[in-house]
Amino acid sequence: MENFNFYSPTEFVFGKGRENECGQLVKKYGGTKVLIHYGQGSVVKSGLLDRVKASLEKEGVAYAELGGVQPNPRDTKVYEGIEICKKENVDFILSVGGGSCIDSSKAIAAGVCYDGDFWDLYSKKATVQKALPIGTVLTIAAAGSEGSGGSVITKEEGMLKRDTGSDLIRPKFSVLNPELTCTLPAYQTGCGATDIMAHVFERYFTNTKEVEITDRLCEAVLLTMIKETPRVIADPSNYEARANIMWAGMVAHNDIVGVGRSQDWNSHGIEHELSGLYDCAHGAGLAVVMPAWMEFVYKHDVMRFAQMAVRIFGKEMDFENPENTAKEGIRAFRKFLSEIGMPINFAQLGAKKEDIPTLVKKMDVQGKTGGFVPLAPEDVAKILEIAADATV
Amino acid sequence: MENFNFYSPTEFVFGKGRENECGQLVKKYGGTKVLIHYGQGSVVKSGLLDRVKASLEKEGVAYAELGGVQPNPRDTKVYEGIEICKKENVDFILSVGGGSCIDSSKAIAAGVCYDGDFWDLYSKKATVQKALPIGTVLTIAAAGSEGSGGSVITKEEGMLKRDTGSDLIRPKFSVLNPELTCTLPAYQTGCGATDIMAHVFERYFTNTKEVEITDRLCEAVLLTMIKETPRVIADPSNYEARANIMWAGMVAHNDIVGVGRSQDWNSHGIEHELSGLYDCAHGAGLAVVMPAWMEFVYKHDVMRFAQMAVRIFGKEMDFENPENTAKEGIRAFRKFLSEIGMPINFAQLGAKKEDIPTLVKKMDVQGKTGGFVPLAPEDVAKILEIAADATV
Repeated sequence: MENFNFYSPTEFVFGKGRENECGQLVKKYGGTKVLIHYGQGSVVKSGLLDRVKASLEKEGVAYAELGGVQPNPRDTKVYEGIEICKKENVDFILSVGGGSCIDSSKAIAAGVCYDGDFWDLYSKKATVQKALPIGTVLTIAAAGSEGSGGSVITKEEGMLKRDTGSDLIRPKFSVLNPELTCTLPAYQTGCGATDIMAHVFERYFTNTKEVEITDRLCEAVLLTMIKETPRVIADPSNYEARANIMWAGMVAHNDIVGVGRSQDWNSHGIEHELSGLYDCAHGAGLAVVMPAWMEFVYKHDVMRFAQMAVRIFGKEMDFENPENTAKEGIRAFRKFLSEIGMPINFAQLGAKKEDIPTLVKKMDVQGKTGGFVPLAPEDVAKILEIAADATV
Repeated sequence: MENFNFYSPTEFVFGKGRENECGQLVKKYGGTKVLIHYGQGSVVKSGLLDRVKASLEKEGVAYAELGGVQPNPRDTKVYEGIEICKKENVDFILSVGGGSCIDSSKAIAAGVCYDGDFWDLYSKKATVQKALPIGTVLTIAAAGSEGSGGSVITKEEGMLKRDTGSDLIRPKFSVLNPELTCTLPAYQTGCGATDIMAHVFERYFTNTKEVEITDRLCEAVLLTMIKETPRVIADPSNYEARANIMWAGMVAHNDIVGVGRSQDWNSHGIEHELSGLYDCAHGAGLAVVMPAWMEFVYKHDVMRFAQMAVRIFGKEMDFENPENTAKEGIRAFRKFLSEIGMPINFAQLGAKKEDIPTLVKKMDVQGKTGGFVPLAPEDVAKILEIAADATV
């Protein structure tokens, strides 16, 4: 096991009706003037925003608000938020939405405290040194941003998708009420589930040996997703299944399942270019990229892929030919994604094969990248070609 | 899933040589005058205490010290610590040792800030309202106290073992260096492993339905312990196995595997009376009590015990008679404990059957207690009788 630090100081407030505690929670973590940041109106229609406001008002906490965060959140909205915070002396960001909204909130929180263009923090010109405190009310189980120190923002000019990370932008609290996800359409639910599974697989495929505890924890999350996702696709209002997925989504990405081991993250890197170019859902892009990545790299460690097939997808080990088991596991993963309504090739995603050179160029691979198997630009092209024509 | 809050703000600093960062860590969390609290001298002999002191000195952090914490830590040592802290204006407790040392440190940290007898916080006359910040350098994987808000102290008068819990006594940081555990004798290693497994089983046996994610996370920790414990018993210096066990010990008890579900904790309650009376190791007592508790309660939920047998101990499911599988799982657990050198009956533990009435009386069961199966005093007696004569 490699040396590591693990720090996840977020207070998770989980369960039915917990959004009504927002006011108390903001006060507990020192907020006096809040920016409520939200997305495209579903939180307005559902009445969630009103409940959050009522909770703040009950505690006498003042607020400004900024809606309109898009999926693949944009720099333009972040600039808008920073301006409001400065003008209104905001000292706390309350994010009401999914991963995009939380990531946008994190960018605002750090941007307000940064003396310069916040994009510097994403283009790696500077690192986060200070940020306003953040709280979240999560509305979709997917990104894990509610428990992580990461944020991904898309620069509209050139649709560049870039990320930053710091313990300073970890939420102080996150309200996780599974009821809020019971109205999500099947497609968004499937995208979220795929994102959660991908967060685990990026950690599962490692070159670090003898990491049984994190292997088993990764498998725990994946086994849960395999059981619970079809249940919510079949019955979106299944609270218990939603609850299991919501907690799994946090566990998948606060890094408790990934500490002390090398991680890969190339599938995420490749997918960011797909959603950057086509503005598709991140989870949908991952469903197309990740099994293709697996097919391209599995020979690097056949036994690890066989372990995935046996322990996660319940396949019988082929002791005479482990490679068969490895391939069967990858097929099972793609089949699972297809069954939960995810696209598995370019046609289904709305991507074009002729864009592959553009995608590779945009990814801007500096030499070789990736913790499990380093990829050169030509490797990325090959993975995208596998992805383009994939079938179940 | 039940509503819950989960809050684990400790910074875990894991890996080789990390104790040398103590000075920086204490400063980071605001300590200027430290009480170094430790046990019976092994940290002196090993040179660990010197390294910790050197690290504090390097950062210009002053310290007092108090050694001599015993296993099943005593109230008398806590009073001593409180007095030193007040006299020396200590503002940070640094615990260098195992669970007993950390629990004693927590009692001191809370006691210094409590205007009255600290025992009130353990006899439930009062709750922790304030505490000095705590850091730990862990020397044995067992209690999970390095990542929990719990503490157990024994009052010498009457050997009463009582606990308290508060987020205020969660450590600010915990240094987990598996190297420090490589010199532990096999018996202590086995006791620690048993404690870790028991922490998970207390959570695993629940009446809450459809909690797949925490079920699977519990199983992940247990599967890890089953793989890694025999490896360290066979080769105490196996760093990788020690590392897996050390992280598993934290995960087992900061409650990430137990949130949102009813938990039991009767085996711990019963064991506290054993170690209270005989001053045996907590893990050894659990090895005797827990399989006996399982035998007494398994009919309450045969399928859950069958799940344990299949998923954790790799048994084949007997679909015609699941009870056989359930019983096979319990047998496998006791056999495993015996194989790692644990006592499994009263004779091996050094306990006496004629003390059972005393043990039951001391446990002071107020009516019925326990989250999985409530137990009356006569049930506790029956469990102790099963434990007394158990064989592999």
